[in-house]
Amino acid sequence: MRIKHHLPVALLSATAATFSINVQAEEPIQPIQPVKEINLALAELGKKLYFDPRLSKSGFISCNSCHNLSMGGTDNLKTSIGDKWQQGPINSPTVLNSSLNVAQFWDGRAADLKEQAGGPIANPGEMASSHTLAVDVIASIPGYVREFTLVFGGEEVSIDRITDAIAEFEKTLVTPNSRFDQWLLGDANAISQYEQEGYELFKSSGCVACHNGEAVGGNSFQKMGLVEPYQTNNEVEGRAAVTGKDADRFTFKVPTLRNVEMTYPYFHDGEAETLTEATDIMGRLQLGRKFSDDENAKIVAFLKTLTGDQPQFLMPILPPSVDATPRPQPFD
Amino acid sequence: MRIKHHLPVALLSATAATFSINVQAEEPIQPIQPVKEINLALAELGKKLYFDPRLSKSGFISCNSCHNLSMGGTDNLKTSIGDKWQQGPINSPTVLNSSLNVAQFWDGRAADLKEQAGGPIANPGEMASSHTLAVDVIASIPGYVREFTLVFGGEEVSIDRITDAIAEFEKTLVTPNSRFDQWLLGDANAISQYEQEGYELFKSSGCVACHNGEAVGGNSFQKMGLVEPYQTNNEVEGRAAVTGKDADRFTFKVPTLRNVEMTYPYFHDGEAETLTEATDIMGRLQLGRKFSDDENAKIVAFLKTLTGDQPQFLMPILPPSVDATPRPQPFD
Repeated sequence: MRIKHHLPVALLSATAATFSINVQAEEPIQPIQPVKEINLALAELGKKLYFDPRLSKSGFISCNSCHNLSMGGTDNLKTSIGDKWQQGPINSPTVLNSSLNVAQFWDGRAADLKEQAGGPIANPGEMASSHTLAVDVIASIPGYVREFTLVFGGEEVSIDRITDAIAEFEKTLVTPNSRFDQWLLGDANAISQYEQEGYELFKSSGCVACHNGEAVGGNSFQKMGLVEPYQTNNEVEGRAAVTGKDADRFTFKVPTLRNVEMTYPYFHDGEAETLTEATDIMGRLQLGRKFSDDENAKIVAFLKTLTGDQPQFLMPILPPSVDATPRPQPFD
Repeated sequence: MRIKHHLPVALLSATAATFSINVQAEEPIQPIQPVKEINLALAELGKKLYFDPRLSKSGFISCNSCHNLSMGGTDNLKTSIGDKWQQGPINSPTVLNSSLNVAQFWDGRAADLKEQAGGPIANPGEMASSHTLAVDVIASIPGYVREFTLVFGGEEVSIDRITDAIAEFEKTLVTPNSRFDQWLLGDANAISQYEQEGYELFKSSGCVACHNGEAVGGNSFQKMGLVEPYQTNNEVEGRAAVTGKDADRFTFKVPTLRNVEMTYPYFHDGEAETLTEATDIMGRLQLGRKFSDDENAKIVAFLKTLTGDQPQFLMPILPPSVDATPRPQPFD
């Protein structure tokens, strides 16, 4: 944008601000913003740790095992597989755009990405290591120690620094430039008439009450089964496990709908296999509304416009263990 | 190289050949040659399939799970983890430079990479799928069908085409430009005096009898425990399982020593945790020679010069399943 030099600064800012929010101002969904203020060296270290199965007791499970960046940041399983093939209690939420969440995990028990990253490492049903062992492993590896020294200005390896780095990498995992965002940003042809009708239905029928904002969700906790109770054999309690309040039973963080075409199956229990099924159940249980086949198809078509550019990066090469590195224990 | 036009063709060829093998002509190890004649679109499809856990019954295990390209093309476990956490019978050999092997698997039961790729998919102890199911899954995914059509000129998905693509990707996984290869190619300072002494010992003590050629191994089958029997609780028989000959018991393909610093633990049973231990055992059992600590350290120092440039590539994004795609069955 060309700027005339004699305009006062205050006026300039106001003009720029008005211009930048012009297109999407009236919509309840905003385009995903590009990532800013990333510490690249810290994120690069975090990428290695994210892919490193030595953070697990078995040496087999990494963050990427259940939040697979080739598959929409999920494992595409109903519930996840943990150490010794234990069946996890809940569906792995996508790591994509997770920096936009109000809190982490389905029940919001971690305040942010950094706090979240420490959880699975030490969870006996997931990576089954401990923070002490994870630190011992990483601190034994000269290639890591050099990188910690470079990034943190000192060679100390701690769970605080490990999770700092993983969180910084995860902050880079946003998916801008979906067709829907292109439409929000002014390209009227980026989505079809049919998809736009789906979006109108998505708004008019009330889905947007919870699925809004940059991530189309992720910014509030809501009861699963608002109008009609949700039937499931899954025993997870939701937010009640955090707040201790009975009223919060079956209350979960509203999942993001960004890249939802890639993050099947759906719901905290993974019981909805398809977007058609998920849309139907949501309509009935949350809105008291039975979508017709045509309405459902239109909403699903809209949802598929939310797939953004997937993070593109070089597969990391991990620094090798040395003789002193504690060995993985997959079968003990 | 400038060539005088009046030289006869025969002489030209001889001169060029003499020149190109000049440096390494006397050495029993040759530099890894750059990959030629790769079908890039086929390799790109193969990369997706290599990383796709939907080729397993569980939806959790991909080729990369046990031949992890972040970790020297191995899982760095004694023996591998298969479907439902089954303990594999043998150490996962590295996929790096595996195109240079005389045959595939420790016992050479597959003639080439393509034949190998079909094995783990249908092995009940590994990926536990079947060729029929794997084909059904891939053929149900529109993103794959389009890519098969582009690459093969027709939309048919078959196990033949799936393994063709995986093998083509694997052919790209060579690791040229190790410090040792730089030395072979004329950079006298690429390895230290100490490392060079290790190489001289490696040759003079006889290691090079089996570990030679471009891959420093991989080109012959040899008995494990030639001078002194190898003691192990591992029940794998080796080449005898292929040939049916009792004389081939405990005969295995000689593993490549390329990137050996990254491919721990060692031997078909993964029982040697460190290079020092592996070198000591090899000296005693194969050569009847007890290396002194200093000799052992020198050989290990030489072995660490064999780490080449690791394959660098963008992590693939997998085309999503659709409603008709057979679902993974991790817990049935």
